[in-house]
Amino acid sequence: MKAIGVFDSGVGGLTVLKELALHFPQENFIYLGDTARLPYGSKSANTIYNYSKQNIQFLIKRNVKAVVIACNSASSHFKEKELNGIPIYNVIEPGSVEALKQSQNKKIGVLGTKATVLSQSYVNAIHALDATVEVFQQACPLFVPLAEEGWIDDPITNFITYRYIQPLVQQQVDTLVLGCTHYPILRNSIQKAAGSAIQLVDSGVAICEILKQELEQKKWIANTISPAERYIELLTTDRSDHFLKLAQDILAPITVQYFDTVDLINV
Amino acid sequence: MKAIGVFDSGVGGLTVLKELALHFPQENFIYLGDTARLPYGSKSANTIYNYSKQNIQFLIKRNVKAVVIACNSASSHFKEKELNGIPIYNVIEPGSVEALKQSQNKKIGVLGTKATVLSQSYVNAIHALDATVEVFQQACPLFVPLAEEGWIDDPITNFITYRYIQPLVQQQVDTLVLGCTHYPILRNSIQKAAGSAIQLVDSGVAICEILKQELEQKKWIANTISPAERYIELLTTDRSDHFLKLAQDILAPITVQYFDTVDLINV
Repeated sequence: MKAIGVFDSGVGGLTVLKELALHFPQENFIYLGDTARLPYGSKSANTIYNYSKQNIQFLIKRNVKAVVIACNSASSHFKEKELNGIPIYNVIEPGSVEALKQSQNKKIGVLGTKATVLSQSYVNAIHALDATVEVFQQACPLFVPLAEEGWIDDPITNFITYRYIQPLVQQQVDTLVLGCTHYPILRNSIQKAAGSAIQLVDSGVAICEILKQELEQKKWIANTISPAERYIELLTTDRSDHFLKLAQDILAPITVQYFDTVDLINV
Repeated sequence: MKAIGVFDSGVGGLTVLKELALHFPQENFIYLGDTARLPYGSKSANTIYNYSKQNIQFLIKRNVKAVVIACNSASSHFKEKELNGIPIYNVIEPGSVEALKQSQNKKIGVLGTKATVLSQSYVNAIHALDATVEVFQQACPLFVPLAEEGWIDDPITNFITYRYIQPLVQQQVDTLVLGCTHYPILRNSIQKAAGSAIQLVDSGVAICEILKQELEQKKWIANTISPAERYIELLTTDRSDHFLKLAQDILAPITVQYFDTVDLINV
């Protein structure tokens, strides 16, 4: 039974893998974290495209039936819908659709890495759906290291979150897209800075709906294994002792059956 | 006239290049910033070694007479003193020698990336010089993104600096090694958190003394060009519009004569 491939530059995409694993208890997953080259968010469009393509090719060699790009920076720069006949799903469009559903006043804020903000991907995707919406972006380069430092419920994080989010609150956005897969880790702090009236959109949750429709349409939904037999494989491009620990914390109660380090270049 | 090669994963090593350029006004320099693969500080020993070796080989192909590893993470993992007959200098030993000179009470603090702290490079280098010294380390993963965000004179930075440095102050260190080439950018905030009684050691300054002795000994000091003719070349592995801007800010009053993007893998 073919697995669904998922990749990110590091641990951030595990927030997406968790949602996928919860929504699809009978599917196998292979997750690739390109930790040797992380982070993508500060790199150029061309470099992010090349790295993404290598990751997808690697997953296709592992015989996956579909690939989810669980990274907003990569989703912003790898736009193809398929590679070698394998469908590729990104997080930008599902996040944009969900943001439009949530927003009442048609003022949407987008939090992302520098690469995602510069790419204008969310602005373009939202405007393709509704050109009258106002979109306000904010790059938050400190969020990824804060999430990786584990300063989750922390006055420093609240201070930084407030600084990044206040300009969007002043623009009266009523919906805020967590436009980086690390950001759901800081969800509580972001909600506190935004106030309870602002809806947060997690693109990891949004992609599950889209993927479900697509897999059903293609009749690719796995139904031959029980959830107890389901197999989740975590692969990273750099050896890391704390990756597995951090991954287990993010994924719980989902469990991992296999963990290894791989070489993308010299396969 | 052969240049001196300098490399770092990004802009941090420019604090070292600036010191070198000021100390050696008649030398040409080629600086390589491996921005496509930055940061090194969170990567494994093996990956940092491989990246460093590729950078050094690239600079040697450009016909440099010596290479300075202007990155503490790379210095911690690439220990060879020469490659293909070209001498290689790291920042760990000069920083350690200088810290020992400064310390009165033989309690030395070291601030660095996770990779540098885990490598124990400063602990080992200092103990090789004086086994009785107590060394206290602190990893500071938020310092690099803070420096790159440009939050230099900022209450958030002071708050974070205080959190990282307070445990070392409590150990009564009288000397603090800035064990990452980005950290001199945050020098004022670090000095404020440490208090004026603690000496800060900048390994970028320390390497200049060592290099001067070595070049004089080898009779490799350039003396044929005037400072006005001196040529500084900046190369990065990823295209970046703001790299040059940030580089010019860090290097001022030193000026750059040439800037380009290079491909290390497909030379």
